[in-house]
Amino acid sequence: MPDFDVVILGAGSAGYSCALRAAQLGLSVALVDDTPVGGTCLHRGCIPTKAWLHAAEVRRTVVTAAAFGIAATLEGADAAGVRGYADSVVDQLHRGLRGLLAGRGVTTVAARGRLVTDGAGPAILADGELYRGGAVVIATGASPITLGLGIDGKRLLTSEDALRLDTLPRRAIVLGGGVIGVEFASLWRDLGVEVVLVEAAERLLLGEEPGHSRILTKELRARGVDVRLGAALEDVTATDDAVTARLGDETLTADVLLVAVGRRPATQGLGLEDAGITLGDSGHVQVDERLRTSARGVWAAGDVVAGPQLAHRGYAHGIFLAEQIAHLRGRLPVRPTLPADRDMPRITYSSLQLASVGLTAAEAGQDAQVVDYRLGGNGRALLLRSPGERESGVVRLVRRPDGPIVGVHLIGDNVAELVAEGALLVGWQATPDDVAGIVHAHPTLGESIAEANWALAGRGLHTPA
Amino acid sequence: MPDFDVVILGAGSAGYSCALRAAQLGLSVALVDDTPVGGTCLHRGCIPTKAWLHAAEVRRTVVTAAAFGIAATLEGADAAGVRGYADSVVDQLHRGLRGLLAGRGVTTVAARGRLVTDGAGPAILADGELYRGGAVVIATGASPITLGLGIDGKRLLTSEDALRLDTLPRRAIVLGGGVIGVEFASLWRDLGVEVVLVEAAERLLLGEEPGHSRILTKELRARGVDVRLGAALEDVTATDDAVTARLGDETLTADVLLVAVGRRPATQGLGLEDAGITLGDSGHVQVDERLRTSARGVWAAGDVVAGPQLAHRGYAHGIFLAEQIAHLRGRLPVRPTLPADRDMPRITYSSLQLASVGLTAAEAGQDAQVVDYRLGGNGRALLLRSPGERESGVVRLVRRPDGPIVGVHLIGDNVAELVAEGALLVGWQATPDDVAGIVHAHPTLGESIAEANWALAGRGLHTPA
Repeated sequence: MPDFDVVILGAGSAGYSCALRAAQLGLSVALVDDTPVGGTCLHRGCIPTKAWLHAAEVRRTVVTAAAFGIAATLEGADAAGVRGYADSVVDQLHRGLRGLLAGRGVTTVAARGRLVTDGAGPAILADGELYRGGAVVIATGASPITLGLGIDGKRLLTSEDALRLDTLPRRAIVLGGGVIGVEFASLWRDLGVEVVLVEAAERLLLGEEPGHSRILTKELRARGVDVRLGAALEDVTATDDAVTARLGDETLTADVLLVAVGRRPATQGLGLEDAGITLGDSGHVQVDERLRTSARGVWAAGDVVAGPQLAHRGYAHGIFLAEQIAHLRGRLPVRPTLPADRDMPRITYSSLQLASVGLTAAEAGQDAQVVDYRLGGNGRALLLRSPGERESGVVRLVRRPDGPIVGVHLIGDNVAELVAEGALLVGWQATPDDVAGIVHAHPTLGESIAEANWALAGRGLHTPA
Repeated sequence: MPDFDVVILGAGSAGYSCALRAAQLGLSVALVDDTPVGGTCLHRGCIPTKAWLHAAEVRRTVVTAAAFGIAATLEGADAAGVRGYADSVVDQLHRGLRGLLAGRGVTTVAARGRLVTDGAGPAILADGELYRGGAVVIATGASPITLGLGIDGKRLLTSEDALRLDTLPRRAIVLGGGVIGVEFASLWRDLGVEVVLVEAAERLLLGEEPGHSRILTKELRARGVDVRLGAALEDVTATDDAVTARLGDETLTADVLLVAVGRRPATQGLGLEDAGITLGDSGHVQVDERLRTSARGVWAAGDVVAGPQLAHRGYAHGIFLAEQIAHLRGRLPVRPTLPADRDMPRITYSSLQLASVGLTAAEAGQDAQVVDYRLGGNGRALLLRSPGERESGVVRLVRRPDGPIVGVHLIGDNVAELVAEGALLVGWQATPDDVAGIVHAHPTLGESIAEANWALAGRGLHTPA
């Protein structure tokens, strides 16, 4: 094989975005992966999960339709039907991505690769061929932590298995109250499953505002999810008929148990350490502030780098590395900037949705100024809730004393898209006065950000006093 | 009655926001209106219309549920049920608003008022009492243009009548392809009504991008709305049983005809001209660039001022005037800035939704740079569409040559909230490079704005080449 300017191991969000941007900058690129381009997010993560979540929302809409004046009868949820819908979206995006890669002249190699180095520099060995790169990027992502629980894909599931179910369980135990566990507990419940959600910590979604964790817990419980906090499962046993687990004095029985306790970086068996790459205790690739590994010419991007595991962080890493490599070769005059982990927006697509960016009030310190605006005062939010259901959503803004906004934290129905404005505010270090004159359309959920902002500037409109 | 610092005639979006902000700034305020506080938007406009639109969306979700794996049967739409839901949201917001006004010490006067002036300055006369104000604000809004068609509230309707229907028509003619006409055509169709939408111009929504008007027309037609462009109704006749109208050689027959050809300023019979206020040809109050009328001490805000008729423009006017009056009295050091009409975001809540802010490509001139990003490449957009339905949404960004973004134009499912980011970009005169490093969460619709922005900066990620 000819040499390439860049050889990328892993075709997920970080790897393929690096490939697309590098090719755009005129670099020759090889992209090596033995699984389809698009990686976890497209095939086994974000996208199919959001399809299941949307199907769950459709079912909830049917069930609550009468409150909006629409008489409808639910016949049932068809897991195979949901999968068909999910697959069709995945296929469409996968076709589009392959087209983009081909259109930009990226060489894709469908084989398992491993890193090798010799005097000539780093390369990826795949299927007996050596793909030598002026730069090599490790972007192999992460895979579910299984706790040695004997995942069988039938009774004991990872999230990847849960997405491939052809029938819905009647009863499910979800182990882990992070983003993935919460999303599955929420969507399964909305699809009619009896769900016990078990989290070892004292609250769900540890990275979010504690108050928002409490609101979410209350909402999930009101919808019938049995949320157990500060709880540990023991003696997990799967039989042909059921899975059982001990929780303190109780024995829980269910059709499936979903293990959603996190994902570990996929850095084993790739020759990384032999090639001189230092891994951290948790298996992450150690990098400097420009994503350089300890091996000359080798970089890392996405979930193999310690930090929040987010597809859009993968994109940001991939784009940055493409520009960084092009810059070092004189192809790009501007030295690129790596977006900070704390500026990455985060979304949990459960019902309620959580979306946030920047620092929590606690992270911002004791002198931070904090405002909470309740969505019960927002017309659009009230329109989206069934009459009679309490609107418990909140927008929290956090600012430095008389300084910029450093945190935006949203919980409520359909708040996911609002975090884009939050990311702009935090990214640009806007002060409340900077944006007080920007007009929000009425009626939108986004007005709640304006109201919170006005309140922070001491001039709330639709707020008491 | 005691004198007030500010007396406001009209308690709609412009009037009540002026009252809330003025009271917050320590001014004494009287708010005069013979209809409930909240005005057209809350009681007869935005809010109840969005309730009907949401009910229509619920029905559409039920009808298309099978495509997402959810089996459901539609029993029907119950107009009285939709009204009950709409009323409950309106009541909740109305109660909240009355509480806010009372909490800030605003004197509300439930009577019809008229402007009078004498040597002592302007005042509002209501119910035999004279409410004298150091400043008087005219904020009486607008009311539907009826074309002398003999609106009877049964066969011949304004939008306000249409919101009060207790049974759905089987067939409806909608006259006018502006925001109101398009929203009703869309929601009625989704509620199962046969709809003919008649617009005199050659396209719907004249203020929007022509290409987006075409996409909307195509979508409405695909859903069964009979859209007639460049068409004029004649000989409209209502009988006990039906309404008929001539359209060229055809005779249209329907159960109702909705007249949605615009709203004219409510400036008659209020003593304005006698008090020395100059009205424009269309009945608007003429104001200078700080909303001052031709009568000393009298200001105007909201839909009585020529420009886009938007509730949030009313808020912006009301807040501005409160600050302006406080500033002139030395209560507020900063001289406030009136947001420009062109920086007001605009939303049409039909299906598809349209949302835009700033200049169209044509308005920006021949040298403007324009990028269209198709939502068919956006994962979240594909997830929200029924599999098999084509995704025809588009994000258009318009920038000055190598300069700031001056227009953001969106069409698609659920794009309304995205215009908040657009308003920030346009309001801050951001260049594509300014925001290229701001990370959008995946998967969100908002990523489409980032993609369009990258493409504008010559570095599109998920775009060809």
